[in-house]
Amino acid sequence: MDESSTGWREQGKPPTLFKRFGFGSYGQTRAFLDALAALSEQAGQHPQNINFGTTYVNITLDAIDGKVLGAAEHAFAARIDALAQGSD
Amino acid sequence: MDESSTGWREQGKPPTLFKRFGFGSYGQTRAFLDALAALSEQAGQHPQNINFGTTYVNITLDAIDGKVLGAAEHAFAARIDALAQGSD
Repeated sequence: MDESSTGWREQGKPPTLFKRFGFGSYGQTRAFLDALAALSEQAGQHPQNINFGTTYVNITLDAIDGKVLGAAEHAFAARIDALAQGSD
Repeated sequence: MDESSTGWREQGKPPTLFKRFGFGSYGQTRAFLDALAALSEQAGQHPQNINFGTTYVNITLDAIDGKVLGAAEHAFAARIDALAQGSD
């Protein structure tokens, strides 16, 4: 388990990237989820799992090749961070 | 734990209703999630938790009063089932 400065945590075998996003309202949560869906379609890259309630979204990204997390996964994570900043 | 004919399972304390929905494609999953968001807004009733990947959606409904599942929760579950049938 490795906590990086981005807040994404590497965990599991095969490894995944995990992060929890908190929001002040359901409207902000919803806006983030909609933006994430649009980004996923555009990037052709989908989180392995998204787990959410009214004011939080937990995201798990798996390795595209099923084995090793690399630049593509970290770039996708950074784009998700940018969406969350836009939803604040 | 109680498995009813609807496929919703009552579990936990305080009790929740849980059901897993499977889909043939990400497009169908997405359509179901969008319909569910619209239903939640309209009903003013939100699942406690939604957990999804590209081809499944797990939904947990909690009791509106935080204690006892009643007609309102079962009616909301039935409306979610109707959405899933529409997404097939």
